[in-house]
This record gives sequence, structure tokens and C-alpha cells, in this order.
Amino acid sequence: MENPFNPTYFMKKALAEAEAAFEKGEIPVGAVIVIDDKIIARTHNLTELLNDVTAHAEMQAITAASHFLGGKYLHNCTLYVTLEPCQMCAGALYWSQIATIIYGASDAQRGCINLNTKLHPKTKIEGGLLAEEASALMKRFFIEKRNLN
Amino acid sequence: MENPFNPTYFMKKALAEAEAAFEKGEIPVGAVIVIDDKIIARTHNLTELLNDVTAHAEMQAITAASHFLGGKYLHNCTLYVTLEPCQMCAGALYWSQIATIIYGASDAQRGCINLNTKLHPKTKIEGGLLAEEASALMKRFFIEKRNLN
Repeated sequence: MENPFNPTYFMKKALAEAEAAFEKGEIPVGAVIVIDDKIIARTHNLTELLNDVTAHAEMQAITAASHFLGGKYLHNCTLYVTLEPCQMCAGALYWSQIATIIYGASDAQRGCINLNTKLHPKTKIEGGLLAEEASALMKRFFIEKRNLN
Repeated sequence: MENPFNPTYFMKKALAEAEAAFEKGEIPVGAVIVIDDKIIARTHNLTELLNDVTAHAEMQAITAASHFLGGKYLHNCTLYVTLEPCQMCAGALYWSQIATIIYGASDAQRGCINLNTKLHPKTKIEGGLLAEEASALMKRFFIEKRNLN
């Protein structure tokens, strides 16, 4: 039998978090951190609500996962995030030594790939999982925001 | 009369924070954020105590200053930090649109200058203020740590 806890399953959980951000008027980015097929952190962007640029989904997920694990390193963990991490989040992931980063939509302008943010040598990164869904949610957010102003 | 609230004055406050980190067994980095000659955030590295790689002095300072100001942008603010910011912190400072970053000691390996972390076009950055003091504190920390192990 196929393992139901596959990357698509976890990215859908991250997308559900992004939708929760959307409902709060936040740029819709969601994240989960997984170890041994278990979700140990689920978070979404809260920069507007908290008035804090550091409150990206990934940053909160790192803090929450570390708290759960009782240690600051995220060895053996996988981060699923709906949008390519920015420099800040990739920089935090560098320090965390996380094993794997899987993101959805790319962010050509502010993402860590084109900006060449250094990841830990132990970290693998891969993009494009459910990218269309993540991207569609972002587009809908910005269209609605524009129409409200 | 010379203004007593000059960059050296504020960097000494950041160094006092770094010393507070040292006393707690944390890598001794301290930061203050200043607006109109007033300190609105004083913080030091707490990554060990909090088990959280995101708890760098600068990250906490950004959060604290935003909380004080009631807004997420740090326009017109200056960050004084005893060590050159890393990619994560420089990435957070990018989002904050802070006016000025003044750091003490350089960090050739993990600092934002050599790693080319992108700062906001509005942000000026300058290093070397009380660099020897900041550097001496770091060296003392790592020597003591080595001797304890």
C-alpha cells in the first residue's frame, strides 16, 4: 500500500495554513515541519497581525519545531512551505541544519535561490510541489487586496 | 557641546548586552535599536537558552522595536550590533527597511557582507565601530568554552 504520508499530503497541510493566513488578510504562506511522518509544527505568515517582519511562516515553524524537539537543530526534519523561502528564512534554516526543504511556488525576486542565500551543506532543497495551487492563492490575495484599496 | 548620544555611546550599550549574553553562556552578541537618540530595543543572543536558532540579538531587537513603534517598518531607526549580521538577520533587516546598520566586529565566514545578503536600497551599513572590544569578548567566550569542555 502506498504511504498516505507522502510529500503531497504534507504540502496540502502547508496549503491549508496558507489559506488560514489568507483569511486573516496576511500574505498567504503556510508551512509545516515533519519528522518521521509526523507534523511537529504548523504555521502561517503573521507579519501584519504581529506587526513584525520576522513573523514569516518558516520562522515560526522553526521556533515551534525546536520547542517540540527540545533542541535547536532540525536534523532529520523536512520543511514544507508553500512559497520559496526568502533570505531571512533560508538564513534561519541554515542555522537549523534542517535535512530537507520542499517549497511550492518560486519567488524569483525575493527567494533564496536567485539571491544565493547559503544553505547548510546537510540541507537538500527542492521546489515546485503544488506550485500552481500556492501561486493561485497568492494571486487571488493580491487581486482582492488591490480591489479593496 | 558634543552630543553625548553618539554612535560610540550606543555601541557601548550594545556591548553591555553582549556581556549579558556572555554571562548566560550565550555567544556574546548584543544589539540596540535607536530612533531620535532614544533606545527602543536592547537585546542579546539567546539561542541556547531558548533552544532556537532564530533568537539572535538582531531578530529580537527588530521584534521589540516594531512592538514599541506599533508598526513593522523601522524607517529612521539605527541598529547597533556588536557583530556583523548573518544572512538571517540581514534578511530580516531587509524586510524592516531600517535606515542604518552599524556593526562592530566583522564575520568573514557567516556575515552578510561576504555572503552578499541583499539589503533594502534605503539601508546604509557600516562596520568596525568598537570592533576590537566586540572581537575580544567573542575570543574570550570561545577560549573559556574550550577550557570547560
